[in-house]
Amino acid sequence: MPFEPRDPNFDAKVRDSFAAQSMMTTLGASITELTPGRVVIAYERLENFCQQHGFMHAGVATTIVDSACGYAALSLAPAGHDVLTAEFKVNFLAPSSGERFIAIGQVIRPGRTLTVCEGEVRQIDDGANRLVAKMQATMMTGEMGS
Amino acid sequence: MPFEPRDPNFDAKVRDSFAAQSMMTTLGASITELTPGRVVIAYERLENFCQQHGFMHAGVATTIVDSACGYAALSLAPAGHDVLTAEFKVNFLAPSSGERFIAIGQVIRPGRTLTVCEGEVRQIDDGANRLVAKMQATMMTGEMGS
Amino acid sequence: MPFEPRDPNFDAKVRDSFAAQSMMTTLGASITELTPGRVVIAYERLENFCQQHGFMHAGVATTIVDSACGYAALSLAPAGHDVLTAEFKVNFLAPSSGERFIAIGQVIRPGRTLTVCEGEVRQIDDGANRLVAKMQATMMTGEMGS
Amino acid sequence: MPFEPRDPNFDAKVRDSFAAQSMMTTLGASITELTPGRVVIAYERLENFCQQHGFMHAGVATTIVDSACGYAALSLAPAGHDVLTAEFKVNFLAPSSGERFIAIGQVIRPGRTLTVCEGEVRQIDDGANRLVAKMQATMMTGEMGS
Repeated sequence: MPFEPRDPNFDAKVRDSFAAQSMMTTLGASITELTPGRVVIAYERLENFCQQHGFMHAGVATTIVDSACGYAALSLAPAGHDVLTAEFKVNFLAPSSGERFIAIGQVIRPGRTLTVCEGEVRQIDDGANRLVAKMQATMMTGEMGS
Repeated sequence: MPFEPRDPNFDAKVRDSFAAQSMMTTLGASITELTPGRVVIAYERLENFCQQHGFMHAGVATTIVDSACGYAALSLAPAGHDVLTAEFKVNFLAPSSGERFIAIGQVIRPGRTLTVCEGEVRQIDDGANRLVAKMQATMMTGEMGS
Repeated sequence: MPFEPRDPNFDAKVRDSFAAQSMMTTLGASITELTPGRVVIAYERLENFCQQHGFMHAGVATTIVDSACGYAALSLAPAGHDVLTAEFKVNFLAPSSGERFIAIGQVIRPGRTLTVCEGEVRQIDDGANRLVAKMQATMMTGEMGS
Repeated sequence: MPFEPRDPNFDAKVRDSFAAQSMMTTLGASITELTPGRVVIAYERLENFCQQHGFMHAGVATTIVDSACGYAALSLAPAGHDVLTAEFKVNFLAPSSGERFIAIGQVIRPGRTLTVCEGEVRQIDDGANRLVAKMQATMMTGEMGS
Protein backbone atom coordinates (compact mmCIF):
# COMPACT_ATOMS: atom_id res chain seq x y z
CA MET A 1 0.00 0.00 0.00
CA PRO A 2 1.67 3.22 -1.11
CA PHE A 3 0.67 6.25 0.97
CA GLU A 4 1.27 9.92 0.26
CA PRO A 5 3.01 11.67 3.18
CA ARG A 6 1.38 14.92 4.30
CA ASP A 7 4.64 16.27 5.71
CA PRO A 8 7.48 16.39 3.14
CA ASN A 9 9.85 16.39 6.11
CA PHE A 10 8.49 13.07 7.42
CA ASP A 11 11.79 11.19 7.28
CA ALA A 12 13.70 13.61 9.53
CA LYS A 13 10.70 14.00 11.85
CA VAL A 14 10.53 10.25 12.47
CA ARG A 15 14.28 9.82 12.90
CA ASP A 16 14.51 12.78 15.30
CA SER A 17 11.72 11.43 17.48
CA PHE A 18 13.22 7.94 17.44
CA ALA A 19 16.61 9.35 18.49
CA ALA A 20 14.88 11.16 21.38
CA GLN A 21 13.42 7.91 22.80
CA SER A 22 15.95 6.85 25.44
CA MET A 23 14.24 3.46 25.42
CA MET A 24 15.30 2.79 21.81
CA THR A 25 18.90 3.81 22.55
CA THR A 26 18.94 1.61 25.65
CA LEU A 27 17.74 -1.36 23.59
CA GLY A 28 20.27 -0.63 20.85
CA ALA A 29 17.38 -0.62 18.38
CA SER A 30 17.71 1.07 14.99
CA ILE A 31 15.48 2.01 12.08
CA THR A 32 16.42 -0.07 9.05
CA GLU A 33 13.58 0.93 6.73
CA LEU A 34 11.41 4.04 6.60
CA THR A 35 8.91 4.78 3.88
CA PRO A 36 5.54 6.57 4.13
CA GLY A 37 3.33 4.32 6.26
CA ARG A 38 5.95 1.68 6.96
CA VAL A 39 8.82 1.43 9.46
CA VAL A 40 11.15 -1.47 10.26
CA ILE A 41 13.20 -1.58 13.49
CA ALA A 42 16.05 -4.01 14.18
CA TYR A 43 16.89 -5.35 17.64
CA GLU A 44 19.48 -7.85 18.88
CA ARG A 45 18.72 -9.77 22.07
CA LEU A 46 20.31 -8.22 25.16
CA GLU A 47 21.05 -10.45 28.15
CA ASN A 48 19.52 -7.93 30.53
CA PHE A 49 16.14 -7.78 28.79
CA CYS A 50 15.02 -11.40 28.96
CA GLN A 51 12.33 -13.48 30.60
CA GLN A 52 13.00 -16.39 32.96
CA HIS A 53 14.25 -18.78 30.24
CA GLY A 54 16.64 -16.31 28.64
CA PHE A 55 14.36 -15.48 25.70
CA MET A 56 13.58 -11.91 24.64
CA HIS A 57 10.94 -10.62 27.06
CA ALA A 58 7.44 -10.26 25.57
CA GLY A 59 7.55 -6.67 26.78
CA VAL A 60 10.59 -5.97 24.61
CA ALA A 61 8.94 -7.50 21.55
CA THR A 62 5.95 -5.28 22.28
CA THR A 63 8.10 -2.20 22.81
CA ILE A 64 9.84 -2.42 19.45
CA VAL A 65 6.72 -3.25 17.44
CA ASP A 66 4.77 -0.49 19.21
CA SER A 67 7.52 1.94 18.15
CA ALA A 68 7.48 0.57 14.59
CA CYS A 69 3.69 1.08 14.37
CA GLY A 70 3.81 4.49 16.05
CA TYR A 71 6.47 5.75 13.66
CA ALA A 72 4.66 4.27 10.66
CA ALA A 73 1.69 6.41 11.73
CA LEU A 74 3.87 9.46 12.39
CA SER A 75 5.34 9.18 8.88
CA LEU A 76 1.86 10.01 7.53
CA ALA A 77 0.92 12.75 10.03
CA PRO A 78 0.77 16.42 9.04
CA ALA A 79 3.62 18.74 10.04
CA GLY A 80 3.40 19.88 13.64
CA HIS A 81 1.47 16.79 14.71
CA ASP A 82 2.51 14.05 17.07
CA VAL A 83 1.30 10.47 17.50
CA LEU A 84 0.38 8.61 20.68
CA THR A 85 -0.50 4.95 21.12
CA ALA A 86 -4.20 4.74 22.00
CA GLU A 87 -4.20 0.95 22.32
CA PHE A 88 -2.81 -2.24 20.89
CA LYS A 89 -3.30 -5.98 20.97
CA VAL A 90 -0.50 -8.49 20.54
CA ASN A 91 -0.55 -12.24 19.97
CA PHE A 92 2.61 -14.17 20.80
CA LEU A 93 2.93 -16.96 18.28
CA ALA A 94 6.19 -18.66 19.16
CA PRO A 95 8.84 -18.45 21.86
CA SER A 96 11.13 -15.52 21.10
CA SER A 97 14.29 -17.62 21.05
CA GLY A 98 17.13 -16.46 18.85
CA GLU A 99 19.28 -13.37 18.70
CA ARG A 100 18.17 -11.11 15.90
CA PHE A 101 14.70 -9.64 15.42
CA ILE A 102 12.95 -7.08 13.28
CA ALA A 103 9.71 -5.30 14.06
CA ILE A 104 7.62 -4.16 11.11
CA GLY A 105 4.98 -1.46 11.50
CA GLN A 106 2.56 -0.89 8.64
CA VAL A 107 -0.34 1.56 8.40
CA ILE A 108 -3.48 -0.15 7.15
CA ARG A 109 -5.79 2.84 7.46
CA PRO A 110 -4.55 6.37 8.00
CA GLY A 111 -7.00 8.87 9.48
CA ARG A 112 -7.17 12.46 10.64
CA THR A 113 -7.52 11.39 14.29
CA LEU A 114 -7.01 7.62 14.41
CA THR A 115 -4.59 5.56 12.35
CA VAL A 116 -4.82 1.78 12.43
CA CYS A 117 -1.62 -0.22 12.01
CA GLU A 118 -0.55 -3.81 11.99
CA GLY A 119 2.78 -4.96 13.23
CA GLU A 120 4.94 -8.04 13.21
CA VAL A 121 7.98 -9.18 15.15
CA ARG A 122 10.10 -11.64 13.20
CA GLN A 123 13.15 -13.62 14.25
CA ILE A 124 15.75 -13.33 11.47
CA ASP A 125 18.74 -15.37 12.60
CA ASP A 126 20.69 -17.06 9.78
CA GLY A 127 18.20 -18.60 7.48
CA ALA A 128 15.27 -18.01 9.82
CA ASN A 129 12.41 -15.66 9.09
CA ARG A 130 9.86 -16.61 11.67
CA LEU A 131 6.84 -14.66 12.89
CA VAL A 132 6.96 -14.49 16.69
CA ALA A 133 4.39 -11.78 17.48
CA LYS A 134 1.56 -9.99 15.69
CA MET A 135 0.13 -6.59 16.69
CA GLN A 136 -3.00 -4.66 15.74
CA ALA A 137 -2.78 -1.07 17.00
CA THR A 138 -4.65 2.22 17.08
CA MET A 139 -2.53 5.37 17.01
CA MET A 140 -3.91 8.83 17.77
CA THR A 141 -2.70 11.92 15.93
CA GLY A 142 -2.88 15.35 17.52
CA GLU A 143 -1.26 18.76 17.36
CA MET A 144 1.99 18.88 19.30
CA GLY A 145 1.62 20.33 22.75
CA SER A 146 -2.14 19.94 22.75
CA MET B 1 -12.25 -12.74 44.20
CA PRO B 2 -10.53 -15.27 46.47
CA PHE B 3 -8.91 -18.17 44.61
CA GLU B 4 -7.56 -21.41 45.97
CA PRO B 5 -3.96 -22.06 44.86
CA ARG B 6 -3.31 -25.52 43.40
CA ASP B 7 0.37 -25.42 44.32
CA PRO B 8 1.01 -24.83 48.06
CA ASN B 9 4.45 -23.59 47.07
CA PHE B 10 3.02 -20.87 44.81
CA ASP B 11 4.67 -17.95 46.60
CA ALA B 12 8.23 -19.23 46.21
CA LYS B 13 7.55 -20.40 42.64
CA VAL B 14 6.42 -16.92 41.58
CA ARG B 15 9.25 -15.12 43.37
CA ASP B 16 11.88 -17.48 41.93
CA SER B 17 10.61 -16.98 38.38
CA PHE B 18 10.44 -13.21 38.87
CA ALA B 19 14.02 -13.18 40.16
CA ALA B 20 15.08 -15.12 37.04
CA GLN B 21 13.69 -12.46 34.66
CA SER B 22 16.68 -10.26 33.88
CA MET B 23 14.18 -7.73 32.49
CA MET B 24 12.62 -7.17 35.92
CA THR B 25 16.04 -6.73 37.56
CA THR B 26 17.11 -4.31 34.82
CA LEU B 27 13.97 -2.24 35.41
CA GLY B 28 14.47 -2.33 39.18
CA ALA B 29 10.93 -3.68 39.49
CA SER B 30 9.81 -5.54 42.62
CA ILE B 31 6.83 -7.56 43.78
CA THR B 32 5.00 -5.67 46.52
CA GLU B 33 1.95 -7.90 46.84
CA LEU B 34 1.40 -11.56 46.08
CA THR B 35 -1.75 -13.49 46.90
CA PRO B 36 -3.40 -16.33 44.95
CA GLY B 37 -4.60 -14.78 41.68
CA ARG B 38 -3.21 -11.29 42.32
CA VAL B 39 0.24 -9.75 41.95
CA VAL B 40 1.37 -6.12 42.31
CA ILE B 41 4.68 -4.90 40.89
CA ALA B 42 6.30 -1.54 41.70
CA TYR B 43 8.44 0.44 39.25
CA GLU B 44 10.15 3.81 39.43
CA ARG B 45 10.74 5.70 36.19
CA LEU B 46 14.25 5.21 34.81
CA GLU B 47 15.73 7.91 32.56
CA ASN B 48 16.91 5.32 30.07
CA PHE B 49 13.49 3.76 29.51
CA CYS B 50 11.46 6.73 28.29
CA GLN B 51 9.69 7.88 25.16
CA GLN B 52 10.51 11.08 23.31
CA HIS B 53 9.00 13.43 25.93
CA GLY B 54 10.70 11.81 28.91
CA PHE B 55 7.62 9.87 30.03
CA MET B 56 7.73 6.15 30.88
CA HIS B 57 7.66 4.30 27.54
CA ALA B 58 4.38 2.54 26.76
CA GLY B 59 6.45 -0.61 26.27
CA VAL B 60 7.67 -0.43 29.87
CA ALA B 61 4.15 0.03 31.21
CA THR B 62 3.17 -3.00 29.15
CA THR B 63 6.16 -5.03 30.34
CA ILE B 64 5.40 -4.61 34.03
CA VAL B 65 1.65 -5.19 33.73
CA ASP B 66 2.26 -8.24 31.52
CA SER B 67 4.52 -9.63 34.25
CA ALA B 68 1.94 -8.82 36.94
CA CYS B 69 -0.77 -10.66 34.97
CA GLY B 70 1.52 -13.58 34.11
CA TYR B 71 2.53 -14.09 37.73
CA ALA B 72 -1.07 -13.72 38.91
CA ALA B 73 -1.85 -16.63 36.57
CA LEU B 74 1.23 -18.59 37.69
CA SER B 75 0.17 -18.24 41.33
CA LEU B 76 -2.86 -20.42 40.49
CA ALA B 77 -1.09 -22.98 38.26
CA PRO B 78 -0.45 -26.56 39.41
CA ALA B 79 3.03 -27.55 40.55
CA GLY B 80 5.37 -28.24 37.66
CA HIS B 81 3.47 -25.96 35.31
CA ASP B 82 4.61 -22.76 33.66
CA VAL B 83 2.69 -19.83 32.19
CA LEU B 84 3.18 -18.06 28.87
CA THR B 85 1.47 -14.94 27.55
CA ALA B 86 -0.79 -15.98 24.68
CA GLU B 87 -1.97 -12.44 23.96
CA PHE B 88 -2.95 -9.14 25.56
CA LYS B 89 -4.58 -5.86 24.74
CA VAL B 90 -3.69 -2.58 26.41
CA ASN B 91 -5.43 0.81 26.38
CA PHE B 92 -3.33 3.83 27.32
CA LEU B 93 -5.57 6.22 29.20
CA ALA B 94 -3.30 9.07 30.18
CA PRO B 95 0.29 10.16 29.57
CA SER B 96 2.58 8.21 31.87
CA SER B 97 4.10 11.26 33.49
CA GLY B 98 5.32 10.96 37.05
CA GLU B 99 7.91 8.85 38.78
CA ARG B 100 6.29 6.00 40.68
CA PHE B 101 4.01 3.34 39.22
CA ILE B 102 2.41 0.08 40.24
CA ALA B 103 1.13 -2.64 37.95
CA ILE B 104 -1.70 -4.80 39.25
CA GLY B 105 -2.42 -8.21 37.71
CA GLN B 106 -5.63 -9.95 38.69
CA VAL B 107 -7.01 -13.28 37.47
CA ILE B 108 -10.65 -13.00 36.44
CA ARG B 109 -11.07 -16.55 35.22
CA PRO B 110 -8.59 -19.32 35.94
CA GLY B 111 -8.61 -22.31 33.61
CA ARG B 112 -6.78 -25.55 33.00
CA THR B 113 -5.30 -24.26 29.75
CA LEU B 114 -6.20 -20.57 29.50
CA THR B 115 -6.38 -18.06 32.32
CA VAL B 116 -7.87 -14.63 31.67
CA CYS B 117 -6.50 -11.67 33.62
CA GLU B 118 -7.03 -7.97 33.83
CA GLY B 119 -4.28 -5.55 34.63
CA GLU B 120 -3.84 -1.91 35.51
CA VAL B 121 -0.91 0.46 35.59
CA ARG B 122 -1.37 3.28 38.10
CA GLN B 123 0.75 6.33 38.79
CA ILE B 124 1.13 6.67 42.57
CA ASP B 125 3.24 9.76 43.15
CA ASP B 126 2.42 11.68 46.33
CA GLY B 127 -1.28 11.92 46.60
CA ALA B 128 -1.83 10.62 43.06
CA ASN B 129 -3.50 7.32 42.25
CA ARG B 130 -4.22 7.60 38.59
CA LEU B 131 -5.03 4.85 36.09
CA VAL B 132 -2.66 5.19 33.12
CA ALA B 133 -3.11 1.86 31.32
CA LYS B 134 -5.56 -1.04 31.32
CA MET B 135 -4.80 -4.58 30.10
CA GLN B 136 -6.94 -7.60 29.29
CA ALA B 137 -4.75 -10.69 28.84
CA THR B 138 -4.87 -14.40 28.07
CA MET B 139 -2.25 -16.56 29.75
CA MET B 140 -1.55 -20.16 28.74
CA THR B 141 -0.61 -22.80 31.29
CA GLY B 142 1.42 -25.84 30.33
CA GLU B 143 3.72 -28.42 31.81
CA MET B 144 7.27 -27.14 32.16
CA GLY B 145 9.53 -28.16 29.34
CA SER B 146 6.63 -29.13 27.09
CA MET C 1 -17.33 5.80 39.44
CA PRO C 2 -19.84 8.65 39.30
CA PHE C 3 -19.61 10.74 36.14
CA GLU C 4 -21.19 14.10 35.37
CA PRO C 5 -23.16 14.04 32.10
CA ARG C 6 -22.38 16.90 29.72
CA ASP C 7 -25.80 16.69 28.08
CA PRO C 8 -28.72 17.06 30.53
CA ASN C 9 -30.85 15.27 27.96
CA PHE C 10 -28.58 12.19 27.96
CA ASP C 11 -31.27 9.72 29.01
CA ALA C 12 -33.62 10.48 26.11
CA LYS C 13 -30.72 10.69 23.65
CA VAL C 14 -29.52 7.20 24.54
CA ARG C 15 -33.00 5.66 24.50
CA ASP C 16 -33.88 7.29 21.16
CA SER C 17 -30.71 5.97 19.55
CA PHE C 18 -31.25 2.51 21.03
CA ALA C 19 -34.81 2.46 19.68
CA ALA C 20 -33.46 3.38 16.23
CA GLN C 21 -31.14 0.35 16.12
CA SER C 22 -33.14 -2.27 14.25
CA MET C 23 -30.61 -4.82 15.50
CA MET C 24 -31.66 -4.28 19.13
CA THR C 25 -35.34 -4.61 18.24
CA THR C 26 -34.66 -7.77 16.26
CA LEU C 27 -32.84 -9.28 19.24
CA GLY C 28 -35.63 -8.24 21.63
CA ALA C 29 -32.97 -6.50 23.73
CA SER C 30 -33.92 -3.78 26.19
CA ILE C 31 -32.17 -1.22 28.38
CA THR C 32 -32.70 -2.12 32.04
CA GLU C 33 -30.36 0.42 33.62
CA LEU C 34 -29.08 3.78 32.41
CA THR C 35 -27.01 6.16 34.49
CA PRO C 36 -24.21 8.51 33.38
CA GLY C 37 -21.40 6.28 32.19
CA ARG C 38 -23.18 2.96 32.72
CA VAL C 39 -25.74 1.04 30.67
CA VAL C 40 -27.19 -2.44 31.18
CA ILE C 41 -28.95 -4.33 28.39
CA ALA C 42 -31.03 -7.49 28.84
CA TYR C 43 -31.31 -10.25 26.24
CA GLU C 44 -33.07 -13.62 26.21
CA ARG C 45 -31.66 -16.35 24.00
CA LEU C 46 -33.42 -16.60 20.63
CA GLU C 47 -33.40 -19.94 18.79
CA ASN C 48 -32.46 -18.24 15.54
CA PHE C 49 -29.32 -16.56 16.89
CA CYS C 50 -27.31 -19.53 18.09
CA GLN C 51 -24.06 -21.30 17.27
CA GLN C 52 -23.84 -24.96 16.28
CA HIS C 53 -24.57 -26.34 19.76
CA GLY C 54 -27.61 -24.17 20.41
CA PHE C 55 -25.78 -21.69 22.65
CA MET C 56 -26.02 -17.92 22.20
CA HIS C 57 -23.67 -17.03 19.32
CA ALA C 58 -20.48 -15.22 20.37
CA GLY C 59 -21.45 -12.55 17.86
CA VAL C 60 -24.69 -11.89 19.74
CA ALA C 61 -22.87 -11.60 23.06
CA THR C 62 -20.52 -9.15 21.36
CA THR C 63 -23.38 -7.19 19.78
CA ILE C 64 -25.17 -6.53 23.05
CA VAL C 65 -22.06 -5.67 25.07
CA ASP C 66 -20.81 -3.41 22.24
CA SER C 67 -24.14 -1.58 22.42
CA ALA C 68 -23.94 -1.37 26.22
CA CYS C 69 -20.44 0.14 26.02
CA GLY C 70 -21.35 2.47 23.15
CA TYR C 71 -24.39 3.82 25.00
CA ALA C 72 -22.41 4.16 28.24
CA ALA C 73 -20.03 6.40 26.25
CA LEU C 74 -22.91 8.27 24.57
CA SER C 75 -24.45 9.02 27.98
CA LEU C 76 -21.38 11.19 28.71
CA ALA C 77 -21.07 12.86 25.29
CA PRO C 78 -21.93 16.53 24.75
CA ALA C 79 -25.23 17.45 23.08
CA GLY C 80 -25.11 17.10 19.30
CA HIS C 81 -22.38 14.46 19.45
CA ASP C 82 -22.52 10.85 18.40
CA VAL C 83 -20.43 7.84 19.34
CA LEU C 84 -18.86 5.19 17.09
CA THR C 85 -17.03 2.02 18.07
CA ALA C 86 -13.36 2.46 17.15
CA GLU C 87 -12.35 -1.02 18.34
CA PHE C 88 -12.95 -3.62 21.00
CA LYS C 89 -11.49 -6.83 22.34
CA VAL C 90 -13.57 -9.62 23.88
CA ASN C 91 -12.57 -12.70 25.87
CA PHE C 92 -15.07 -15.54 26.02
CA LEU C 93 -14.79 -17.10 29.46
CA ALA C 94 -17.43 -19.80 29.48
CA PRO C 95 -19.90 -21.36 27.06
CA SER C 96 -22.92 -19.09 26.74
CA SER C 97 -25.40 -21.74 27.76
CA GLY C 98 -28.57 -20.61 29.48
CA GLU C 99 -31.46 -18.38 28.53
CA ARG C 100 -31.14 -14.99 30.16
CA PHE C 101 -28.20 -12.60 29.83
CA ILE C 102 -27.29 -9.05 30.71
CA ALA C 103 -24.59 -6.94 29.13
CA ILE C 104 -23.04 -4.23 31.29
CA GLY C 105 -21.18 -1.31 29.71
CA GLN C 106 -19.15 0.94 32.00
CA VAL C 107 -17.00 3.95 31.10
CA ILE C 108 -13.59 3.76 32.74
CA ARG C 109 -12.12 6.87 31.17
CA PRO C 110 -14.21 9.47 29.35
CA GLY C 111 -12.43 11.73 26.89
CA ARG C 112 -13.13 14.49 24.41
CA THR C 113 -12.32 12.22 21.46
CA LEU C 114 -11.83 8.70 22.85
CA THR C 115 -13.74 7.06 25.68
CA VAL C 116 -12.52 3.75 27.08
CA CYS C 117 -15.10 1.31 28.42
CA GLU C 118 -15.19 -2.12 29.90
CA GLY C 119 -18.06 -4.50 29.40
CA GLU C 120 -19.32 -7.79 30.72
CA VAL C 121 -21.85 -10.33 29.56
CA ARG C 122 -23.36 -12.29 32.42
CA GLN C 123 -25.73 -15.26 32.40
CA ILE C 124 -28.45 -14.59 34.97
CA ASP C 125 -30.74 -17.62 34.91
CA ASP C 126 -32.33 -18.53 38.25
CA GLY C 127 -29.67 -18.33 40.85
CA ALA C 128 -26.87 -17.96 38.29
CA ASN C 129 -24.78 -14.85 37.89
CA ARG C 130 -21.93 -16.02 35.76
CA LEU C 131 -19.45 -13.99 33.72
CA VAL C 132 -19.41 -15.36 30.17
CA ALA C 133 -17.59 -12.60 28.25
CA LYS C 134 -15.41 -9.58 29.03
CA MET C 135 -14.87 -6.59 26.71
CA GLN C 136 -12.41 -3.71 26.65
CA ALA C 137 -13.50 -1.09 24.11
CA THR C 138 -12.54 2.28 22.63
CA MET C 139 -15.41 4.54 21.58
CA MET C 140 -14.95 7.64 19.45
CA THR C 141 -17.01 10.77 19.99
CA GLY C 142 -17.67 13.22 17.18
CA GLU C 143 -20.10 15.87 16.08
CA MET C 144 -23.16 14.38 14.42
CA GLY C 145 -23.02 14.39 10.66
CA SER C 146 -19.26 14.99 10.64
CA MET D 1 0.19 -19.52 3.15
CA PRO D 2 -0.73 -23.06 2.15
CA PHE D 3 -1.62 -25.33 5.07
CA GLU D 4 -1.98 -29.09 5.18
CA PRO D 5 -5.35 -30.17 6.64
CA ARG D 6 -5.14 -32.83 9.37
CA ASP D 7 -8.67 -34.05 8.68
CA PRO D 8 -9.23 -35.16 5.06
CA ASN D 9 -12.93 -34.59 5.67
CA PHE D 10 -12.39 -30.92 6.60
CA ASP D 11 -14.64 -29.49 3.90
CA ALA D 12 -17.76 -31.38 4.95
CA LYS D 13 -16.99 -30.84 8.65
CA VAL D 14 -16.87 -27.07 8.21
CA ARG D 15 -19.97 -26.91 6.02
CA ASP D 16 -21.98 -29.12 8.39
CA SER D 17 -21.08 -26.98 11.38
CA PHE D 18 -21.86 -23.79 9.45
CA ALA D 19 -25.26 -25.19 8.45
CA ALA D 20 -25.95 -25.97 12.12
CA GLN D 21 -25.43 -22.34 13.20
CA SER D 22 -28.93 -20.88 13.22
CA MET D 23 -27.26 -17.44 13.37
CA MET D 24 -25.71 -17.89 9.91
CA THR D 25 -29.03 -19.02 8.43
CA THR D 26 -30.84 -16.08 10.04
CA LEU D 27 -28.31 -13.67 8.53
CA GLY D 28 -28.57 -15.35 5.12
CA ALA D 29 -24.79 -15.75 5.19
CA SER D 30 -23.06 -18.31 2.99
CA ILE D 31 -19.59 -19.78 2.55
CA THR D 32 -18.18 -18.69 -0.81
CA GLU D 33 -14.64 -19.99 -0.40
CA LEU D 34 -13.20 -22.79 1.71
CA THR D 35 -9.61 -23.98 1.55
CA PRO D 36 -7.37 -25.29 4.35
CA GLY D 37 -6.82 -22.34 6.69
CA ARG D 38 -9.01 -19.87 4.80
CA VAL D 39 -12.78 -19.26 4.72
CA VAL D 40 -14.78 -16.51 3.04
CA ILE D 41 -18.38 -15.73 4.04
CA ALA D 42 -20.76 -13.51 2.08
CA TYR D 43 -23.48 -11.36 3.67
CA GLU D 44 -25.99 -8.89 2.26
CA ARG D 45 -27.23 -6.12 4.54
CA LEU D 46 -30.55 -6.93 6.18
CA GLU D 47 -32.82 -4.06 7.27
CA ASN D 48 -33.41 -5.68 10.64
CA PHE D 49 -29.74 -5.96 11.58
CA CYS D 50 -28.64 -2.34 11.44
CA GLN D 51 -27.40 0.36 13.77
CA GLN D 52 -29.14 3.71 14.26
CA HIS D 53 -28.14 5.15 10.86
CA GLY D 54 -29.18 2.12 8.83
CA PHE D 55 -25.64 0.76 8.40
CA MET D 56 -24.74 -2.87 9.09
CA HIS D 57 -24.39 -3.19 12.88
CA ALA D 58 -20.79 -3.58 14.12
CA GLY D 59 -22.01 -6.71 15.89
CA VAL D 60 -23.03 -8.27 12.57
CA ALA D 61 -19.68 -7.47 10.99
CA THR D 62 -18.06 -9.10 14.02
CA THR D 63 -20.35 -12.12 13.87
CA ILE D 64 -19.51 -12.98 10.27
CA VAL D 65 -15.78 -12.41 10.58
CA ASP D 66 -15.69 -14.39 13.84
CA SER D 67 -17.34 -17.27 11.99
CA ALA D 68 -14.92 -16.93 9.07
CA CYS D 69 -11.94 -17.08 11.45
CA GLY D 70 -13.42 -19.92 13.51
CA TYR D 71 -14.08 -22.03 10.42
CA ALA D 72 -10.64 -21.25 9.01
CA ALA D 73 -9.25 -22.70 12.27
CA LEU D 74 -11.64 -25.67 12.16
CA SER D 75 -10.52 -26.50 8.62
CA LEU D 76 -7.09 -27.30 10.08
CA ALA D 77 -8.23 -29.15 13.23
CA PRO D 78 -7.85 -32.93 13.59
CA ALA D 79 -10.88 -35.17 13.12
CA GLY D 80 -13.12 -35.27 16.18
CA HIS D 81 -12.01 -31.83 17.34
CA ASP D 82 -14.04 -28.67 17.66
CA VAL D 83 -13.03 -25.01 17.76
CA LEU D 84 -14.16 -22.28 20.15
CA THR D 85 -13.40 -18.57 20.05
CA ALA D 86 -11.11 -17.76 22.98
CA GLU D 87 -10.92 -14.06 22.19
CA PHE D 88 -10.77 -11.52 19.39
CA LYS D 89 -10.08 -7.87 18.76
CA VAL D 90 -11.70 -5.85 15.99
CA ASN D 91 -10.92 -2.41 14.60
CA PHE D 92 -13.68 -0.66 12.67
CA LEU D 93 -12.04 1.31 9.90
CA ALA D 94 -14.91 2.85 7.99
CA PRO D 95 -18.69 3.12 8.32
CA SER D 96 -20.26 -0.11 7.10
CA SER D 97 -22.43 1.56 4.50
CA GLY D 98 -23.33 -0.40 1.40
CA GLU D 99 -25.17 -3.62 0.77
CA ARG D 100 -22.77 -6.45 0.06
CA PHE D 101 -19.97 -7.64 2.31
CA ILE D 102 -17.52 -10.48 2.56
CA ALA D 103 -15.70 -11.66 5.68
CA ILE D 104 -12.35 -13.34 5.17
CA GLY D 105 -10.86 -15.57 7.88
CA GLN D 106 -7.24 -16.64 7.50
CA VAL D 107 -5.11 -18.75 9.84
CA ILE D 108 -1.74 -17.14 10.47
CA ARG D 109 -0.45 -19.69 12.95
CA PRO D 110 -2.10 -23.06 13.51
CA GLY D 111 -1.43 -24.79 16.83
CA ARG D 112 -2.39 -27.91 18.74
CA THR D 113 -4.32 -25.88 21.32
CA LEU D 114 -4.43 -22.29 20.05
CA THR D 115 -4.75 -21.12 16.47
CA VAL D 116 -4.26 -17.45 15.65
CA CYS D 117 -6.24 -15.96 12.77
CA GLU D 118 -6.68 -12.63 11.12
CA GLY D 119 -9.92 -11.52 9.56
CA GLU D 120 -11.25 -8.78 7.36
CA VAL D 121 -14.69 -7.47 6.51
CA ARG D 122 -14.82 -5.85 3.09
CA GLN D 123 -17.63 -3.97 1.37
CA ILE D 124 -17.87 -5.25 -2.20
CA ASP D 125 -20.68 -3.28 -3.85
CA ASP D 126 -20.21 -2.62 -7.57
CA GLY D 127 -16.70 -1.52 -8.08
CA ALA D 128 -16.04 -1.17 -4.35
CA ASN D 129 -13.59 -3.33 -2.43
CA ARG D 130 -13.18 -1.48 0.80
CA LEU D 131 -11.83 -2.73 4.13
CA VAL D 132 -14.36 -1.87 6.86
CA ALA D 133 -13.17 -4.01 9.77
CA LYS D 134 -10.04 -5.93 10.79
CA MET D 135 -9.92 -8.77 13.33
CA GLN D 136 -7.11 -10.56 15.16
CA ALA D 137 -8.44 -13.68 16.89
CA THR D 138 -7.39 -16.63 19.03
CA MET D 139 -9.26 -19.88 18.47
CA MET D 140 -9.05 -22.84 20.84
CA THR D 141 -9.12 -26.41 19.58
CA GLY D 142 -10.34 -29.24 21.76
CA GLU D 143 -11.80 -32.71 21.54
CA MET D 144 -15.53 -32.64 20.91
CA GLY D 145 -17.59 -33.05 24.02
CA SER D 146 -14.68 -32.26 26.31
